[in-house]
Amino acid sequence: MALIVKKFGGSSVATPDKMRAIVQRVLKGSQPDDKIVIVVSAMGKSTDKLIELASQITSKTYGREMDMLLSTGEQVSIALMAMAFQEAGHKSISFTGAQAGITTSDAFNKGRILDIQPDRILKALDEGNIVIVAGFQGITDSGDITTLGRGGSDTTAVAIAGAIHADVCEIYTDVEGIYTSDPRVVPNAQKMKEITYGEMLEMAKLGAGVMQPRAVEMGSRFNIPIHVRSTFSENEGTIIQEAYSMEIKQYLIRGVAEDKNVAKITVLGIPNKPGYAYKLFETLANANVVVDMIVQSVRVANEGVTDITFTISRDELASAKDVLEQIKGMMPVEDILIDDKMAKVSVVGAGMAGHPGIASGMFGVLGKNNINIEIISTSEISITCLISEDQVDTAVRAIHAYFFDEN
Amino acid sequence: MALIVKKFGGSSVATPDKMRAIVQRVLKGSQPDDKIVIVVSAMGKSTDKLIELASQITSKTYGREMDMLLSTGEQVSIALMAMAFQEAGHKSISFTGAQAGITTSDAFNKGRILDIQPDRILKALDEGNIVIVAGFQGITDSGDITTLGRGGSDTTAVAIAGAIHADVCEIYTDVEGIYTSDPRVVPNAQKMKEITYGEMLEMAKLGAGVMQPRAVEMGSRFNIPIHVRSTFSENEGTIIQEAYSMEIKQYLIRGVAEDKNVAKITVLGIPNKPGYAYKLFETLANANVVVDMIVQSVRVANEGVTDITFTISRDELASAKDVLEQIKGMMPVEDILIDDKMAKVSVVGAGMAGHPGIASGMFGVLGKNNINIEIISTSEISITCLISEDQVDTAVRAIHAYFFDEN
Repeated sequence: MALIVKKFGGSSVATPDKMRAIVQRVLKGSQPDDKIVIVVSAMGKSTDKLIELASQITSKTYGREMDMLLSTGEQVSIALMAMAFQEAGHKSISFTGAQAGITTSDAFNKGRILDIQPDRILKALDEGNIVIVAGFQGITDSGDITTLGRGGSDTTAVAIAGAIHADVCEIYTDVEGIYTSDPRVVPNAQKMKEITYGEMLEMAKLGAGVMQPRAVEMGSRFNIPIHVRSTFSENEGTIIQEAYSMEIKQYLIRGVAEDKNVAKITVLGIPNKPGYAYKLFETLANANVVVDMIVQSVRVANEGVTDITFTISRDELASAKDVLEQIKGMMPVEDILIDDKMAKVSVVGAGMAGHPGIASGMFGVLGKNNINIEIISTSEISITCLISEDQVDTAVRAIHAYFFDEN
Repeated sequence: MALIVKKFGGSSVATPDKMRAIVQRVLKGSQPDDKIVIVVSAMGKSTDKLIELASQITSKTYGREMDMLLSTGEQVSIALMAMAFQEAGHKSISFTGAQAGITTSDAFNKGRILDIQPDRILKALDEGNIVIVAGFQGITDSGDITTLGRGGSDTTAVAIAGAIHADVCEIYTDVEGIYTSDPRVVPNAQKMKEITYGEMLEMAKLGAGVMQPRAVEMGSRFNIPIHVRSTFSENEGTIIQEAYSMEIKQYLIRGVAEDKNVAKITVLGIPNKPGYAYKLFETLANANVVVDMIVQSVRVANEGVTDITFTISRDELASAKDVLEQIKGMMPVEDILIDDKMAKVSVVGAGMAGHPGIASGMFGVLGKNNINIEIISTSEISITCLISEDQVDTAVRAIHAYFFDEN
């Protein structure tokens, strides 16, 4: 007997035919005494259609009523999926986020899961049902419907798996698993059999798009293995878990990630006195601009000023520009330079901590390829270099070849 | 200050433009201190689209999952309506049936409202909101979503009006009010200013389509005036209420109704002994076939047998035929005749009880027009004749002329 949560995204449930295919796959791939919870997203483009409908009425496509609207998308999916299982002769019941006992914060459009009371899910499983749960949604303490924002359905699936102590949470997606690099950039990237939560989180944050960090964090918190695999094939995918199986060798480097959603901002000639850097970043934080890498350079001829360079997501460049205009009125600065053609290349691996030579190896590869490094930042399990966007694909391929082809 | 519930049906909220038109109408037509609850149905044909989607998956388009599916239609409407009021600068909040505190029986697809706890509605009104409530839906004690079946949104509106002690429940529809007969059949039918719950119930049950009996019953129970009026004009419609205003004269006849959804079944030569008629109608009832008029005729030459004629809705003819086949195996009958080209014509009026001559007047009109009466049935406030379908429009026009043009 296995207790399994399976999550299917919007493209996997886009049509009644695709739903039937999922039913067949789930029934064929499970034992009669398995207990199965299926988390689904809204069908295909239905969320986009609801947003379009709202935009015909208001420009304010956020807030409580938007969640009331969008949550119907998943509700349609769960009802149809339960019907599809029943039609195939299997007991099945669907639950909205509220019925599944998912309580969230009252931050509409980006609710955080606070608690799951899985009594109804467990009871329905005991009664022999395949339980279908709406992803991406929950309910506040005061009974308002919320949605969870980006990556919400993955988060729902992993959180439910945690709440019911599932053996595994399977995330079905349009790729075969997690690769050592993006296969569209690095054709010989290898599918990983396993990766740790920490490494996957780092990969996700540094640009690897398959899993949202929130769901990985949730898996780590409840120690639920996450199996990322393809909707369209029977192949084993990648297991994200706490530590590697005994049989697997320790990897120095686990993957090479790139992120093109980067803008670099340089504030020239800011007074080199306590409080100025604080004021700069506090003002950015107050405007909800998230700063990623930061470097402060000291001028050789000490002129009492310094230069500060930092990176942000390009999505937030408009907000950042407003803040920088305010900064000019708040402190003397020589100039502010903006470059929105930057990118990050990163190597990730829990094994690198005890092994010198990873950083120098990476820098050497970049140097050999005439790629200039603008900023370097490191964590316990990653090294990231800021480089020019038009060189990043070359950089990823060269670094991947160095670490994976040579070993 | 007035406390008003307004209900708009699917065609009134079919597009964002139509929703905006409702917003303008509601805001212009109310005082700043009025408290307004708006009950809406699903947009235009959206319920039909959901049913079509379900029918691509299963032939079983009923049960719990169907309500899970269909209830999304109203949820989309309420979210968009609340957005439309907010966009027009007015505070507004939407509630699903569950959030509005509407508890129903657990009869999926045809739930009955058991209770309304209007605390959230009242609180939201006190906070200055126009409150938008999803019609046609509720929730069971165990937290399952139900729909209320035919006429469900009208019932929701009147039930909420009762629960919050509203001054009036306005039902917006595509006609100007309740007419003395169907204006498509009787061009000079008159719009009524008022009608009693009892008369309206009788009219509705006898075929007048504007209001469903359930909503009228609910109005009667809570003594909430129901104002049936047009979505497309500012004219006063018809008020359904307990009794007539003092100024209004007592009407003998209030309206003439027709119903073409009738089939006549005659069981010939059934034994004229106790228990056979009971067995016949019990078997029909067990198959959920609702029998309307019944007449048993005694043969002149007493042959120990009798003939029983009854009518049913044509929708249930298929089920009835199955039952009649069983009947043939259960008792000796000479023959069973089915005529699905029958119709009912009725006169309705609370004043007729104390006034002889209404029945004879009606029969006289039918006789003068060479229309044969097959069955007659009467209630306290109505007389109904079963006649041939191809004569019913003529009958309605002639009876309407007799009672309304002459008076």
